[in-house]
Amino acid sequence: MRNSDQVRKILSWYPSDNPGTLSNLARMMNTGRLAGTGKFVILPVDQGFEHGPVRSFQPNPGGYDPDYHYNLAIDAGCNAYAAPLGALEATAGKYNGEIPLILKLNNSDSMAKVGEPISAITGSVEDALRLGCSAIGFTIYPGSAERNLMYEQIREMILEAKSVGIPTVLWAYPRGSGLSKAGETAVDIVAYAAHVAAQLGAHVIKVKPPTAHVEQPENQKVFEKFNIPTATMADRVRHVVQSCFNGKRIVIFSGGEAKGTDAVLEEIRGIRDGGGFGSIMGRNAFQRPHDEAVKLLNTIMDIYAGKA
Amino acid sequence: MRNSDQVRKILSWYPSDNPGTLSNLARMMNTGRLAGTGKFVILPVDQGFEHGPVRSFQPNPGGYDPDYHYNLAIDAGCNAYAAPLGALEATAGKYNGEIPLILKLNNSDSMAKVGEPISAITGSVEDALRLGCSAIGFTIYPGSAERNLMYEQIREMILEAKSVGIPTVLWAYPRGSGLSKAGETAVDIVAYAAHVAAQLGAHVIKVKPPTAHVEQPENQKVFEKFNIPTATMADRVRHVVQSCFNGKRIVIFSGGEAKGTDAVLEEIRGIRDGGGFGSIMGRNAFQRPHDEAVKLLNTIMDIYAGKA
Amino acid sequence: MRNSDQVRKILSWYPSDNPGTLSNLARMMNTGRLAGTGKFVILPVDQGFEHGPVRSFQPNPGGYDPDYHYNLAIDAGCNAYAAPLGALEATAGKYNGEIPLILKLNNSDSMAKVGEPISAITGSVEDALRLGCSAIGFTIYPGSAERNLMYEQIREMILEAKSVGIPTVLWAYPRGSGLSKAGETAVDIVAYAAHVAAQLGAHVIKVKPPTAHVEQPENQKVFEKFNIPTATMADRVRHVVQSCFNGKRIVIFSGGEAKGTDAVLEEIRGIRDGGGFGSIMGRNAFQRPHDEAVKLLNTIMDIYAGKA
Amino acid sequence: MRNSDQVRKILSWYPSDNPGTLSNLARMMNTGRLAGTGKFVILPVDQGFEHGPVRSFQPNPGGYDPDYHYNLAIDAGCNAYAAPLGALEATAGKYNGEIPLILKLNNSDSMAKVGEPISAITGSVEDALRLGCSAIGFTIYPGSAERNLMYEQIREMILEAKSVGIPTVLWAYPRGSGLSKAGETAVDIVAYAAHVAAQLGAHVIKVKPPTAHVEQPENQKVFEKFNIPTATMADRVRHVVQSCFNGKRIVIFSGGEAKGTDAVLEEIRGIRDGGGFGSIMGRNAFQRPHDEAVKLLNTIMDIYAGKA
Amino acid sequence: MRNSDQVRKILSWYPSDNPGTLSNLARMMNTGRLAGTGKFVILPVDQGFEHGPVRSFQPNPGGYDPDYHYNLAIDAGCNAYAAPLGALEATAGKYNGEIPLILKLNNSDSMAKVGEPISAITGSVEDALRLGCSAIGFTIYPGSAERNLMYEQIREMILEAKSVGIPTVLWAYPRGSGLSKAGETAVDIVAYAAHVAAQLGAHVIKVKPPTAHVEQPENQKVFEKFNIPTATMADRVRHVVQSCFNGKRIVIFSGGEAKGTDAVLEEIRGIRDGGGFGSIMGRNAFQRPHDEAVKLLNTIMDIYAGKA
Repeated sequence: MRNSDQVRKILSWYPSDNPGTLSNLARMMNTGRLAGTGKFVILPVDQGFEHGPVRSFQPNPGGYDPDYHYNLAIDAGCNAYAAPLGALEATAGKYNGEIPLILKLNNSDSMAKVGEPISAITGSVEDALRLGCSAIGFTIYPGSAERNLMYEQIREMILEAKSVGIPTVLWAYPRGSGLSKAGETAVDIVAYAAHVAAQLGAHVIKVKPPTAHVEQPENQKVFEKFNIPTATMADRVRHVVQSCFNGKRIVIFSGGEAKGTDAVLEEIRGIRDGGGFGSIMGRNAFQRPHDEAVKLLNTIMDIYAGKA
Repeated sequence: MRNSDQVRKILSWYPSDNPGTLSNLARMMNTGRLAGTGKFVILPVDQGFEHGPVRSFQPNPGGYDPDYHYNLAIDAGCNAYAAPLGALEATAGKYNGEIPLILKLNNSDSMAKVGEPISAITGSVEDALRLGCSAIGFTIYPGSAERNLMYEQIREMILEAKSVGIPTVLWAYPRGSGLSKAGETAVDIVAYAAHVAAQLGAHVIKVKPPTAHVEQPENQKVFEKFNIPTATMADRVRHVVQSCFNGKRIVIFSGGEAKGTDAVLEEIRGIRDGGGFGSIMGRNAFQRPHDEAVKLLNTIMDIYAGKA
Repeated sequence: MRNSDQVRKILSWYPSDNPGTLSNLARMMNTGRLAGTGKFVILPVDQGFEHGPVRSFQPNPGGYDPDYHYNLAIDAGCNAYAAPLGALEATAGKYNGEIPLILKLNNSDSMAKVGEPISAITGSVEDALRLGCSAIGFTIYPGSAERNLMYEQIREMILEAKSVGIPTVLWAYPRGSGLSKAGETAVDIVAYAAHVAAQLGAHVIKVKPPTAHVEQPENQKVFEKFNIPTATMADRVRHVVQSCFNGKRIVIFSGGEAKGTDAVLEEIRGIRDGGGFGSIMGRNAFQRPHDEAVKLLNTIMDIYAGKA
Repeated sequence: MRNSDQVRKILSWYPSDNPGTLSNLARMMNTGRLAGTGKFVILPVDQGFEHGPVRSFQPNPGGYDPDYHYNLAIDAGCNAYAAPLGALEATAGKYNGEIPLILKLNNSDSMAKVGEPISAITGSVEDALRLGCSAIGFTIYPGSAERNLMYEQIREMILEAKSVGIPTVLWAYPRGSGLSKAGETAVDIVAYAAHVAAQLGAHVIKVKPPTAHVEQPENQKVFEKFNIPTATMADRVRHVVQSCFNGKRIVIFSGGEAKGTDAVLEEIRGIRDGGGFGSIMGRNAFQRPHDEAVKLLNTIMDIYAGKA
Repeated sequence: MRNSDQVRKILSWYPSDNPGTLSNLARMMNTGRLAGTGKFVILPVDQGFEHGPVRSFQPNPGGYDPDYHYNLAIDAGCNAYAAPLGALEATAGKYNGEIPLILKLNNSDSMAKVGEPISAITGSVEDALRLGCSAIGFTIYPGSAERNLMYEQIREMILEAKSVGIPTVLWAYPRGSGLSKAGETAVDIVAYAAHVAAQLGAHVIKVKPPTAHVEQPENQKVFEKFNIPTATMADRVRHVVQSCFNGKRIVIFSGGEAKGTDAVLEEIRGIRDGGGFGSIMGRNAFQRPHDEAVKLLNTIMDIYAGKA
């Protein structure tokens, strides 16, 4: 499939990557209902690992089965499906390439009382290759005292992945003793975490939709001095996207906790208006009944495509 | 031996594995009195290491000898015999393949006061190959603050083992500062730990029979909201099995502490009725006199085979 | 893109491969005008290396430029574009994934007087990964006294490629002191060479359309004894396809020297009627003017698709 | 399955091997109709590679399909099925362990005019592991001027295979400029080649049934001086078996060219009477119709088991 | 030298080891006054490292010189001489194989205040090979919170040593925050520690003579319930030996602190009567004058040989 002008423009922002890595990035952009637009809606399903199966899948019990998610992502026309190793092992060899896969290379469960937040490494670039994945995923927790270890883990993986033609999606989730609870989604911190992800070499950066809270007093002064608008979601997303190489990195936004359809769509419009590149929407997708989820995801895609 | 339809169906759940790994998985399913049924009764003897020899073997002193267990597993028609390195070294080269072996690659003793639970690595995939083993075994303690290290140890071993045709049995035993004592066997936590084992790439998942306790308040809300039944062992086992890729992973249950025959059998019937794939029965087997143990294990096999 | 039933059937013939390798094989089958049919028309351009540029490109000088071929393959709706390292270096990073690429890993030029035929290794699996290729290609010359070296080179590359998710296209071109000139395209020898390629682990086997000549007297006896038909191209192709695991390997046919359109199409119909999986058509494509080439390739695709 | 006394006795002849290697050797002895007897009937199908598909498979065209052979070996109750890489790739992942597999690691085709006989390496120990094979196979041509290269290739493979628990079957086929045509099956040479295979570390040695010809004059003198009987097949087999560590290596005999049933059975009785351990029977098996082949192989097994 | 029936029986307990490892084990059993009996008296001299030179050697100043110990071991007819790297460097190349050597691969000094007990690695398997040693030695401290690290260090060394034909002597010395001071020699703990050593793959296990103290309440219940006798040294040694694979591992006992000859001999008789395999006697040997030491050691040997 020919890369559209928009896809070519986005690829031009990564001029130091090899064709293998860019081809996989393009593949995600050329898949699904948003193919060619440079926009993304990705289905991520690591909530079973992160929050436990009952909380994640009981609302829509089909989701206990990894097959369900693989197929939902296709039925809804997503760009890619992201999951931990086991779920991809259970599906990759059954369907063989029907949708781009993102192997999540670290995960955290909610059973242990770990001190500072840091996930366990649960997969490798070698796994991504043998499973035919188009990208690796990894979570960093800027704000955690374990920062250095996490950053060092992912920079090694990014380097290895790049050499074999695999781009990286970085979940940048501020968290840890360096931040207040409100700070985890503060606009200055989300922008900062996203910038760090860009500096670490991420191709796609995933953050949470930012709130108007500003965490660091030094930042607050600057926001005030320069009248940086933060009132609307679009304002805040614009700041985050600008913080990622002036918009020359793909920044996408998580859907967060399950909520009503109107609330979801309003948030999406804000992300779109602020120049966000799309959404990675888990619980708000797979916890709805299948057809409802497809309908919601399609509406979201239409919003990003400028059709709704 | 031809794989039965049931065995082929189970193997189809692991579509990303190579033939070597699946052949070893099949070998365990084609051994013993349950051959071809897709059900498992495995004899594990790591209690000498875990709890010390006197507590483990004095009730039936023949068990001080690793030969005893190797032979008991065959006499009873088990699918496999699992043990630490030393016990397999003492028997593998004497009998040479009379029953599939599972090399337990980590172990914990009860002498040290270790902080958060984590076992010592006591063997390698290379050992498993030279001893002719059909699988490796490993214990994770979800709930331990040492979670990351454990998960990272086993994911590397699973990757290596898969590449040389060896499947993995994961002992998922919730334990550690993140959980209450009751939480270690709580139905939500056992299901969660089993799910994590599946995501880590385990082929066979071993858990303890779950109690009706629900450990995490967030989970309690979900159990209540969706009226998930937990009254009977069958109810709870069903939830655990569902949490493992909707039943597409082999989940087996430990026998736990030594107890009366009726109590054992009742538990087994619950596991069977809930869709459990079998038992891994140590102390309740080898601490009984030989013929009594064989009789008990045979009755258990009959229950799983639907004959009792 | 969903794999069609036909694509799934073909993938089922490679049950020992990992999902990465099968996904790349599927990608080629899901590209172009023949997407989903399980048929192939591939554009190969290694003639510049093999026969020199003037002979190859002067008839249609646009072909001096590797861009021309990359685009021609897309314009014509081919499944893939195959070329040596340099030509792919010149295009892969410019277009980034617009069509599946096959990196030809060995090549021979016509300047040296090499004794027994054997090509030089001109690329690696590592190159294929960094360039984002969907397959590697390699030429063997069964009949050459250098057979052992060639077979040993490719078996190591196939093993490496499989481990990182890349399938192999093997050019099986009988040639060398063991064969007469007529023997190079003899039906018994083409079938034999294709069988050897299958045994070496090739996923796709490329041979020349066979003639009715039978090279080896022992084979002649068998053809006669069993009345194996060889009169038509379809007869001979059928024998070759059967010789590749009874049709369970993808066998495609080269277009050979440039010739008239009618001759080309008649040959294609024979290949199709004999159960061939498609064509790999170089000179007869790129030596024609662009639009004429597209038209010819489209007609060929229609023939394979049963539309012409 | 318990090893019989006979199997244990045979295993005791390999006291320096690790349990993994002996377990795989035992597995072959515990499979099929001859399970437990220490006798072997193996189905080898590398003739497609060695002699070409038409000569090999046209007499019974089902044999073009590797599935046919995998199933024939099981239907007939063979101990193992031996084939080159491609044929095992096509079947191992479909059936997953239904019969022990022997991966032939080198092969020769009949297209090239190679000087001194030496096969190409076409697989690796790593392949054997990932395909779940119970042994590797390899052909040496004692008598060839390429002897050193072949011996050095196999000794490295044997060492690697032993370390990961895989035994070796060595095809010892005297051939090359050092021998006359008659010498290739001469009793002194077959015995000598088998002895060399034993010295190279083979666990199972495959030779052709020897003729009464004595190739080397020095040997002829000894045969005469000591009145070594060579008149019957049993006499000659006895000499060959004695030459392999006085019968403490498993020596099996090829079936050779296709021939009538009576001729086959007479030869088998001679091998049995001489103390041969069994047959590796290719063309005389798979070139017959399926049921006839099963019947023939079963009769052969009965002969080895002392029932016919 | 022929292995005696007793030596052959002992070697049969290690059926998974290669001949190199068993030959070195046999060499120790075939050396000195106890040659062929399967009993051991080993001279270990690591006290200089462990307790400092003045405390260790001043009582008999010849012992400052490593030559002294090498020769004392031979003069007394010991099976082997064990020491840290430096002492063996100083003697191995001077005498070149006059007595089997055991290279102690970890050591602890008494200068540092280390938290939980763990020794420093002070040598390697490579050292053992180049110095011509017949075994490696290693100390584990079951009961230490550093347990995992120690067990993981030795399991890697054992695997490496086995692969190059070197057996392992494991010093199992319970110690650390998990145990009381009395617990370090408690009969239940010594038995447990010895069992763990066996499971880790040790060929020879060295423990301290156990006291009648039982450390763990759960064990106390079992000792009482089954009336396990612990009154005499023989009783306790019997329990320890049984705990090591029912007597199928070589268990030897340290001499402990220097004491009077009668006390030493009485302890030895207890060890012998309980089925212990011998002693590893340091300070009670080398701190006595040479001839007195030889006489004591000879008497000890006579006791083990049943002559005293």
